[in-house]
Amino acid sequence: MKQQLPGGVIRQNRKLADGRDIFYYDNSDISRDAVDTRNEVAQPGIGHLRLDVLVNEWVAVASHRQHRIFLPPKQLCPLCASTKDKQTEIPDSDYEVVVFTNRAPALTNPGENWSLPQLAGLDTPNPDAAGACEVVCYTSDHESSFAKLSVKQIRAVLEAWKDRDKTLSTLSYIEHVFPFENRGEEVGVTISHPHGQIYAYSFIPPRVEKMLSAAQEHLKKTGRVLLDDVIKREIKDERRIIAKNSEWIAYVPYAARYPFEIHVAPLRGVAHMNQLDETQSESFAPIAKEVLSRLDGVFGIEMAYIASWYQSPVSIGQDCMRLHWQIVSVRRQPGKLKYLSGSESGMGAFIMDLDPEQSADQLRAVKL
Amino acid sequence: MKQQLPGGVIRQNRKLADGRDIFYYDNSDISRDAVDTRNEVAQPGIGHLRLDVLVNEWVAVASHRQHRIFLPPKQLCPLCASTKDKQTEIPDSDYEVVVFTNRAPALTNPGENWSLPQLAGLDTPNPDAAGACEVVCYTSDHESSFAKLSVKQIRAVLEAWKDRDKTLSTLSYIEHVFPFENRGEEVGVTISHPHGQIYAYSFIPPRVEKMLSAAQEHLKKTGRVLLDDVIKREIKDERRIIAKNSEWIAYVPYAARYPFEIHVAPLRGVAHMNQLDETQSESFAPIAKEVLSRLDGVFGIEMAYIASWYQSPVSIGQDCMRLHWQIVSVRRQPGKLKYLSGSESGMGAFIMDLDPEQSADQLRAVKL
Repeated sequence: MKQQLPGGVIRQNRKLADGRDIFYYDNSDISRDAVDTRNEVAQPGIGHLRLDVLVNEWVAVASHRQHRIFLPPKQLCPLCASTKDKQTEIPDSDYEVVVFTNRAPALTNPGENWSLPQLAGLDTPNPDAAGACEVVCYTSDHESSFAKLSVKQIRAVLEAWKDRDKTLSTLSYIEHVFPFENRGEEVGVTISHPHGQIYAYSFIPPRVEKMLSAAQEHLKKTGRVLLDDVIKREIKDERRIIAKNSEWIAYVPYAARYPFEIHVAPLRGVAHMNQLDETQSESFAPIAKEVLSRLDGVFGIEMAYIASWYQSPVSIGQDCMRLHWQIVSVRRQPGKLKYLSGSESGMGAFIMDLDPEQSADQLRAVKL
Repeated sequence: MKQQLPGGVIRQNRKLADGRDIFYYDNSDISRDAVDTRNEVAQPGIGHLRLDVLVNEWVAVASHRQHRIFLPPKQLCPLCASTKDKQTEIPDSDYEVVVFTNRAPALTNPGENWSLPQLAGLDTPNPDAAGACEVVCYTSDHESSFAKLSVKQIRAVLEAWKDRDKTLSTLSYIEHVFPFENRGEEVGVTISHPHGQIYAYSFIPPRVEKMLSAAQEHLKKTGRVLLDDVIKREIKDERRIIAKNSEWIAYVPYAARYPFEIHVAPLRGVAHMNQLDETQSESFAPIAKEVLSRLDGVFGIEMAYIASWYQSPVSIGQDCMRLHWQIVSVRRQPGKLKYLSGSESGMGAFIMDLDPEQSADQLRAVKL
């Protein structure tokens, strides 16, 4: 069955040999009927969550993941389309955008009657690691990157994100949906094919919890939405703005934590990705391409980055939290990385080695 | 003037050519009178703090640090003792343990009348980046490591930590003292000479804030100290204990976030490092050596790690927070690192690829 999505994107749901879901998202009406003929063993079992009582944070223990695939050579890439000689994760011989369930998911469907236990310090039980981990392949072209995708292709990726956000948000055991991309070996990417991931958590992740609390406090104090005010300040200051169109703005945040950190947000705020309307969705690709091209242009090398979509949790915060995209690069100079060491990792206290305004200057100076 | 410290350690305070402090800590009574004859320019200015309003966290902007020294070859190591031909950061031709002010400190003395502003969302002013950044050289032997230090030498390091903790805690602009070590290029170490650092913050760092809040809640609910109860559970469970002596215990925590994570705590809890008594101080070196040797033994390679001392802030939390040492290694297999990517870095949600019990088994199995 074909599902028509906004932007002319068509979704087709299929199954992999081991029962995992795979979704094709296409700009054209093409049938995706190739069958996964691999002899697949059953999926690994579910992990569990443990409460770190020192900070009241959940840790997902997923010991079945240790032996997952690691930097395969191109001819063994599991994210390329299948060929006669080689079956990959994508049964078809070509694709535009696909999403499928991670082969070694840290978080997965817990079955019936799962619920997150109340925090009770050392007496907190260990629930199954409920949630979802999905892989989002941006293109069948192994050598491409998000920045190099066509506008039409980025729209298909966006529709895939929106579609999965919408569906995952309806699952009883999902509390927060997080689309992201790790890019570059420097941030631990184990497969170089252009792709991102979606993690859907059964709890509010620690950083979102902090954002929620700051946004709630701001709403209570001022009656306004925090991100709206943040964007107002960026527009007023001007100096950190990197790119702007009728619907989106991109800036180095006032208190950037990384030498190259860019936030991208819709000017008309929405709480969830799946609430982006047609105009917003259509205007996303140009700014996304510009921002990522500027990032690659700073040193003339493909920048390693982590690109994270922040939005409101599923069941709380829609009144005060707003969707935005934070792209952080761990590179501070051509031969130097920004590491999360003692202060950042041990204390959570970031030291930023570059003025955010200087970082914005460098990003704006890139000739596209 | 020589200051007698516990454990027979003697401290001598000196100045570097540019006015920075240097402290020698020696096990023997030797005079450290060598003079720093370098032509030194004045220290770089002070950075500032910016509030990241999305999460209510301070970020230290220290743009003068960008060009700090990066992996110098051994013959140019600034942490070796000085020779006739080469003046380093340590004027003397030999030393046991030294502490000196970082040449490019992210946090520094703000002068008179500094105070941290109240958080006021987007209206929060930018204070000077008050605090201290110090370098702790563990030994003059460039090729050594903390694990290889003699028991006597580790005692001198501990006395240096205690002494600096005590002094820094008295400064009006210091709210939290954090001794730590980054070891290995994998965690961004720019100088391979065995050394650690002390960061002293003018605010409660985010991770300590979370620890404080969890500890306060536990005290309120149970009347007990959280870390005491954590240690009780570890002793009862047994399975994650790595090493123990009459005063200290070392274990893989129940909710470990890294494949190899070890916590080391005194059995008789103290809030601050400088409160460790003679018996505790004397028993620290053997367990520290054992734990770090086990870590290096797991794969037979020098493990990259971040070793962080957690303690109570200066002015709050002494009733509920307890000193302990968290050592986390980013290595998960000989050729594989654990990266803080999307889930950890973007969401603060850790995925642990190894059962903590399995990790403890591997650490215990190391033949010393």
